[in-house]
Amino acid sequence: MASQLPTIPKGTRDFSPIEMARRNYIFDTIKKAFILYGYQQIETPAMENLSTLMGKYGEEGDKLLFKILNSGDFMKEVNTDDVSQRNLVKLTNAMCEKGLRYDLTVPFARYVVQHRNDLQFPFKRYQVQPVWRADRPQKGRYREFYQCDADVVGSDSLINEVELLSLADYVFGKFGIRVLIKLNNRKVLSGIAELIGAPEKIVDITVAIDKIDKIGIENVNEELRSKGLAETSINILQPLLLLSGSNEEKLAKLTDLLRESETGMKGIEELKYVLNHVAKLGIQSDVEVDVSLARGLNYYTGSIVEVKAKDVEIGSISGGGRYDNLTGVFGLQGVSGVGISFGADRIYDVLNALNLYPETVNSSSKILFVNFGETEAEVSLEYVMQLRKEGVSAEVYPEPSKMKKQMGYADAKGIPYVAIIGETEVAEGVITLKEMSTGEQYKLTLQELVEKVKK
Amino acid sequence: MASQLPTIPKGTRDFSPIEMARRNYIFDTIKKAFILYGYQQIETPAMENLSTLMGKYGEEGDKLLFKILNSGDFMKEVNTDDVSQRNLVKLTNAMCEKGLRYDLTVPFARYVVQHRNDLQFPFKRYQVQPVWRADRPQKGRYREFYQCDADVVGSDSLINEVELLSLADYVFGKFGIRVLIKLNNRKVLSGIAELIGAPEKIVDITVAIDKIDKIGIENVNEELRSKGLAETSINILQPLLLLSGSNEEKLAKLTDLLRESETGMKGIEELKYVLNHVAKLGIQSDVEVDVSLARGLNYYTGSIVEVKAKDVEIGSISGGGRYDNLTGVFGLQGVSGVGISFGADRIYDVLNALNLYPETVNSSSKILFVNFGETEAEVSLEYVMQLRKEGVSAEVYPEPSKMKKQMGYADAKGIPYVAIIGETEVAEGVITLKEMSTGEQYKLTLQELVEKVKK
Repeated sequence: MASQLPTIPKGTRDFSPIEMARRNYIFDTIKKAFILYGYQQIETPAMENLSTLMGKYGEEGDKLLFKILNSGDFMKEVNTDDVSQRNLVKLTNAMCEKGLRYDLTVPFARYVVQHRNDLQFPFKRYQVQPVWRADRPQKGRYREFYQCDADVVGSDSLINEVELLSLADYVFGKFGIRVLIKLNNRKVLSGIAELIGAPEKIVDITVAIDKIDKIGIENVNEELRSKGLAETSINILQPLLLLSGSNEEKLAKLTDLLRESETGMKGIEELKYVLNHVAKLGIQSDVEVDVSLARGLNYYTGSIVEVKAKDVEIGSISGGGRYDNLTGVFGLQGVSGVGISFGADRIYDVLNALNLYPETVNSSSKILFVNFGETEAEVSLEYVMQLRKEGVSAEVYPEPSKMKKQMGYADAKGIPYVAIIGETEVAEGVITLKEMSTGEQYKLTLQELVEKVKK
Repeated sequence: MASQLPTIPKGTRDFSPIEMARRNYIFDTIKKAFILYGYQQIETPAMENLSTLMGKYGEEGDKLLFKILNSGDFMKEVNTDDVSQRNLVKLTNAMCEKGLRYDLTVPFARYVVQHRNDLQFPFKRYQVQPVWRADRPQKGRYREFYQCDADVVGSDSLINEVELLSLADYVFGKFGIRVLIKLNNRKVLSGIAELIGAPEKIVDITVAIDKIDKIGIENVNEELRSKGLAETSINILQPLLLLSGSNEEKLAKLTDLLRESETGMKGIEELKYVLNHVAKLGIQSDVEVDVSLARGLNYYTGSIVEVKAKDVEIGSISGGGRYDNLTGVFGLQGVSGVGISFGADRIYDVLNALNLYPETVNSSSKILFVNFGETEAEVSLEYVMQLRKEGVSAEVYPEPSKMKKQMGYADAKGIPYVAIIGETEVAEGVITLKEMSTGEQYKLTLQELVEKVKK
């Protein structure tokens, strides 16, 4: 039969056993940390009503939602004029009621509102599930990928921010990834916007600040001019552009700059509180105030956090912040929240680049029993059951194939031990154990074998 | 703001923290067993090309696939005549290239063919992922649900069947669910069809056999007549309809009945092999030959397995069998496989009905530190970090709310211990620990507290 190899949709991935072992190590480490910090897991459906998703991610986001064709007669509600005019938006609305989850935040907001009477607030939830985006696929950008989110809703306390930074520090400590945690506060940015009377320019300003090291202050000022900032504003911004030194020094200069702005001063106070407390907790990672940090500006209202790996050139591997009105769009006002998200795919790349996976991250059995035929296989089956009861993953090669083939199987799968049970071993009630890494062989009783492979 | 509560698509579910804890217990138990038995995990994308999925589940199955609207101009390929004629099949093909996974078997077959050069055969894989079906939702039937599959491909050996039965026995033993494992063989059914010269009647016959206990042999014979079976065929079938007794007795009668059919005798031999070997392995569950077992008749070619809970009236909670040509449809011939699938949702219902969850299945922190204000909270934050390092999940209530509210939070979440750190405790360097179940209070050092809550 002539046939093409089957394929999968672009931007999606199959995960092989070794990739799964590594991904599970990442997810398990993050989940275990979430649990230690008192977050509780929820899961939401892959499909949400489009009414829940649409309008939450901007116009561009609406286009990137994967929509699901209605079951049955999906043409029922379609207006013929919309077909002839190729009115894609109206046609989509007529033919699709559901879409795939685009992130975990909007489904979480929907969850909180829908189940608010059953929840204990503050509600600390974590969620580790795939999301889907019809982005143009490219290196490191996929149409299906996992998000690992932890959020607290229903509490304004900055203790939550302290705990989230501590959590990030804990997680990356477990991975052995050295990180820099960047911290900013939306209120500081609002203070700056107040200062120059141009709130709509705040993104341009943060982008410019971020370029100082690369292009120098003169070029940055030129860029600000080209963005339409007045000369007086640019003058006011100079101390901000030249912000440097320790966090204390930066905060002192910011205080000087923003002393007239109540909002700005509130932001500085919050930064101080968080910095002060994470220092007391003995956080290992470097924490740096960075006023150019402007992620999530359209929804973060307080703290803004971003985590970067120190030893690998890659974008942020974790980030989060505080949002004051997560659930407002679903009709529940006044629920403040703060959360953090870990980027599993980038963490995967960092761990690969730094070769940081523990040796125990392995997808194969610990031991393979070679199959020499019916009698020997029967004995082997009983041994593997004993090993499994001891918590050792074990398998019998199912066919009495040539020794070379069976050893090749163990080798290719990275199985560290091979048990050889031939006539002699059956008669003597022993097992010949071959250690694949050294080639050494031992004759052992089952009990001795268990002790050896469990080490 | 007046607004409706948001909802989720019918047939889908949110999972709350306690539900997640229980589901994780189920998935973890099954996954751990898969690993002990030497299966390796893979994952495939939620979306597959429709060309991969269509035609694999019958005409009805094609309708139950969730199709994803193409991104961008999904009307590009649409033919106006198909619109005016409401030709849903052609319109779907024109507008949708992708669909959601309907089961784990077809994506697995696709995976094996696509990656065949990278795989070691026999390939033992497990996969635990959600699948989606546009079925009419009803009690116990969802549009999104998880499958937990383990399969071996590339080996004809019956050792694989023995291992799968052993695996089912192991899993349900871990859950504490008493089960009956029903075993049949497609070749026995083919032998019966040969015997009466009516292979197309095999489903009617198995359905009839299944009803013997309920409606009696006369009514069963009447039903067979009404299905168009000749009187001679019905006569031949009488010993089969009256099959009873131990597995040995059943197999003896089957041997007598099928002695002229080579295929039928092969099926009996396979049944004997599997029964003989699982008995030797000391399987705990009852295993029963049941010739009325006819699941998956359109693809199973050898062993057929079904697992039923003994103490709860519910459908099968696990099932599987051997298929000779899983990958043929994707152009790779001659790859035999055998697999088993565990029904997580039904297992969930059985564990609930029998109240079999271990006490450790809990979604909450082990200990909550009450918040009395800034100073006490700071001390508490340091204590919770120590506890987490000891592997104890711990949290500080983020706000200095009224004691009653904080205790209510602990109570509602089922947190077993509450730590109280007031002025006295800070001064003395101790912690007052309250055991929620008894109301008892102790003054402890951190070390004593760790020992107490870790127990």
